[in-house]
Amino acid sequence: MNTGKLYGLGIGPGDPELLTLKAHRILTTVPVIAYPTLENGKVLARAIVADFIRPDQIEIPMPLPFSVERSSQPHYDRAAEKIAEYLAAGKDVAVLCEGEPMLYGSFMYLFQRLAPRFPTEVVPGISSTMASAAMLGAPITFRNDVLSIMPATLDAETLRDRLAVADAAVIIKLGRHFAKVRTILDELGLLDRALYIERATQPNQRIVPITELDPAEVPYWALILIPSQTQPQ
Amino acid sequence: MNTGKLYGLGIGPGDPELLTLKAHRILTTVPVIAYPTLENGKVLARAIVADFIRPDQIEIPMPLPFSVERSSQPHYDRAAEKIAEYLAAGKDVAVLCEGEPMLYGSFMYLFQRLAPRFPTEVVPGISSTMASAAMLGAPITFRNDVLSIMPATLDAETLRDRLAVADAAVIIKLGRHFAKVRTILDELGLLDRALYIERATQPNQRIVPITELDPAEVPYWALILIPSQTQPQ
Repeated sequence: MNTGKLYGLGIGPGDPELLTLKAHRILTTVPVIAYPTLENGKVLARAIVADFIRPDQIEIPMPLPFSVERSSQPHYDRAAEKIAEYLAAGKDVAVLCEGEPMLYGSFMYLFQRLAPRFPTEVVPGISSTMASAAMLGAPITFRNDVLSIMPATLDAETLRDRLAVADAAVIIKLGRHFAKVRTILDELGLLDRALYIERATQPNQRIVPITELDPAEVPYWALILIPSQTQPQ
Repeated sequence: MNTGKLYGLGIGPGDPELLTLKAHRILTTVPVIAYPTLENGKVLARAIVADFIRPDQIEIPMPLPFSVERSSQPHYDRAAEKIAEYLAAGKDVAVLCEGEPMLYGSFMYLFQRLAPRFPTEVVPGISSTMASAAMLGAPITFRNDVLSIMPATLDAETLRDRLAVADAAVIIKLGRHFAKVRTILDELGLLDRALYIERATQPNQRIVPITELDPAEVPYWALILIPSQTQPQ
């Protein structure tokens, strides 16, 4: 018997209409769907595509630890083995990936475990880093600009050094690191250019001027976009 | 009479199935479609969606100069005025944008001219920089990694400096700059990690080991991906 195929399915940043035609086709035809669930009960990936899932499709929730202090690798080991059972039985499995699967995605840990053993296809998705520019109405980069995408979880010195040489930047995973990032933007004279958005393209998307933000309110799913200042030629 | 709405429609890197559901809906319902055409006859954007366009839709080809030596701004002035005529007459206009409209996109020059005058919506698309990772089977960034996207058109010193501090990188617009980039990757010890792809997701996509490439053959629509080396934790 042939084994099934593993799909890493990019489903975009939140708006169900931002699935690609390809992701929609695969999602609505595979027999098995897997998706991460967090200990704190948040299951964004499944919520995005809830209207597309049929009752006869098998669902594999994959519990992941929410805390970054503990290693999540044993969880990926277990999820990979569960998925492997279906693949070995000849069933295709689509793993739902918020945004783009290959960019800071938890799918990559399954990819590393399963791609050497089973036929695998990754379907690119719209990254929230890109979608935020459309939502903010802010062109990111022109011509010879360098764009840097960086997590707010970096230490202050690294963040400062990388931002200082970027023509445009996206700072992701803000959450409790917002105050640190705000201070650095102020030091670098970037506060006037920086644009804040949380949960881009989701129903509860919020765009707020950075100077009016309460640091205690900033979620993990928030980012700051610093668009290029390059003028057209 | 109400004016029409301007759409900047991200249509992805080349595979028509990588349009989003939203871009497909708008594309198949607007009365007017505009797209860039180059002096050398290449019209990639229209080719990607050719099967979706109806005969009764009005098409506005927008000629742009191929040479980077001449300013393209007078061309955008003319294209914007042509589009404005339809918008002023109450017709919605969708501008086709390869990849992501806000990332190194020619749409941004129309956006700057028209968004202040007409209701405008940008629909994000899959960028070739992201799709290339899926095609190459290479996760881009993990955890605290910094990703830098940079054009090969930059001078050698700037390229070297930016690459030296990036955890992962995508070098776009290779073309005649390939030899320069290859030398820099060699100097930085990055040649073993660097992956080459041209025309990602298009029918004539090509993946070649960098050491086997003839620099004279490298097109503008080629890029090099340097994936992160970060190990999972």
